[in-house]
Amino acid sequence: MTEGARVWLIPDGYLPERSQGDQPSHEAICVLNTGVRDATLRITFYFEDRPPLRDVEVVVSAERTRHLRTDEPEQLGGQSLPRGVPYAVRVASDHPVVVQHSRLDTSATALALMTTLAHPVQHDEADAP
Amino acid sequence: MTEGARVWLIPDGYLPERSQGDQPSHEAICVLNTGVRDATLRITFYFEDRPPLRDVEVVVSAERTRHLRTDEPEQLGGQSLPRGVPYAVRVASDHPVVVQHSRLDTSATALALMTTLAHPVQHDEADAP
Amino acid sequence: MTEGARVWLIPDGYLPERSQGDQPSHEAICVLNTGVRDATLRITFYFEDRPPLRDVEVVVSAERTRHLRTDEPEQLGGQSLPRGVPYAVRVASDHPVVVQHSRLDTSATALALMTTLAHPVQHDEADAP
Amino acid sequence: MTEGARVWLIPDGYLPERSQGDQPSHEAICVLNTGVRDATLRITFYFEDRPPLRDVEVVVSAERTRHLRTDEPEQLGGQSLPRGVPYAVRVASDHPVVVQHSRLDTSATALALMTTLAHPVQHDEADAP
Repeated sequence: MTEGARVWLIPDGYLPERSQGDQPSHEAICVLNTGVRDATLRITFYFEDRPPLRDVEVVVSAERTRHLRTDEPEQLGGQSLPRGVPYAVRVASDHPVVVQHSRLDTSATALALMTTLAHPVQHDEADAP
Repeated sequence: MTEGARVWLIPDGYLPERSQGDQPSHEAICVLNTGVRDATLRITFYFEDRPPLRDVEVVVSAERTRHLRTDEPEQLGGQSLPRGVPYAVRVASDHPVVVQHSRLDTSATALALMTTLAHPVQHDEADAP
Repeated sequence: MTEGARVWLIPDGYLPERSQGDQPSHEAICVLNTGVRDATLRITFYFEDRPPLRDVEVVVSAERTRHLRTDEPEQLGGQSLPRGVPYAVRVASDHPVVVQHSRLDTSATALALMTTLAHPVQHDEADAP
Repeated sequence: MTEGARVWLIPDGYLPERSQGDQPSHEAICVLNTGVRDATLRITFYFEDRPPLRDVEVVVSAERTRHLRTDEPEQLGGQSLPRGVPYAVRVASDHPVVVQHSRLDTSATALALMTTLAHPVQHDEADAP
């Protein structure tokens, strides 16, 4: 069983600068691997005014989900993303997975949420990951 | 008329631990069956650190919608999902349906909402449900 | 130029019972017709426990958008949808359009928003509208 | 590597009339260009009651993202969009890109967020941009 796609794109990444309450404003790249083999992801972060940050490697085990916090360097192989700056994400995987992206914004007195599936790249559009 | 797909995937499931006001923080798996035959769903829940919870069975009648609350075990065949833990969902159906996933978070003084369609698995990607 | 699809499905419809402030809680079915011919929509509303409400007819002019409020019967050919009840939507059009669905919830002291594109039915899945 | 599509559609655009706090209510058209060539976008804005506003031109450099604020005329070639009026968007590009659309609403005492990917037009649906 292979479900999903090997390349996913997320245009709207943004880590709000401010947080209130006990939850920091953050985003999560949420991955589901329904397959029977572990998937190795290679994540690229794109910016408006500088070259991409490439080759952040993350493993999602077989038949597991993983919700990667992009504000926590220890979840991104030590890479740190700047706050208050637009970014975008490309997730490539050696086995098909499904990717969703969500933001929790606590910069106001109440929290706000948004989410979307990432855009799956079709096999005839994409090179190997 | 058969509309939709037989397998749908949702990577970002999460039941917030806290609630305020008279509405508990919750999520709903919303299913639409536009066909003339009842659809039997088999739902699998995936986690980060433990094996999947499989074979939760739910029926969506012909030409009806059903909004399944994932925080109410009586809607999931008695299965109870933990709060405060990332999870993901696979919905398989014996007839085509459409699946959307929404979260209502009341952990702050005001509520927050997010929603997305699930990812439909194409016929050539998926095994039988 | 024909862009979009002729049939779109939205599983998660819900009109919150309460509202605060000067904006009522509401939903909108947002349609974009980039074509050069007017599109006539036929909308079906599905429920959990009763037969569908069919054949609500709406026109979206060529090269125009229309944001249909589902809480305003005058925008739905006089049909009134109940509040506090899960529903779902099928939009069929005689020419291709694109459909998005959004909810504004003002039941708490601050508003909450959610949105998603509807699910486009592929030509080989769907009957004529 | 060409990833994404050359035409994207967004039905639900709306710039809220009111704002509170230090962030204005706004929307962003977020574009990711993973390709090695700069992409030139031509954006059309559709309304309910007037002809479209065409040919707003914007460049997204190779391997960069760009988050276009639709409330800032200087980001739209000097074009100004009205507040409090439903609109829709068509983004055409000379090279494949991915497009997401997000709204931040600060009209209440707390902010609200919503987002969705735009609808990609398939090659056999669309004319040249």
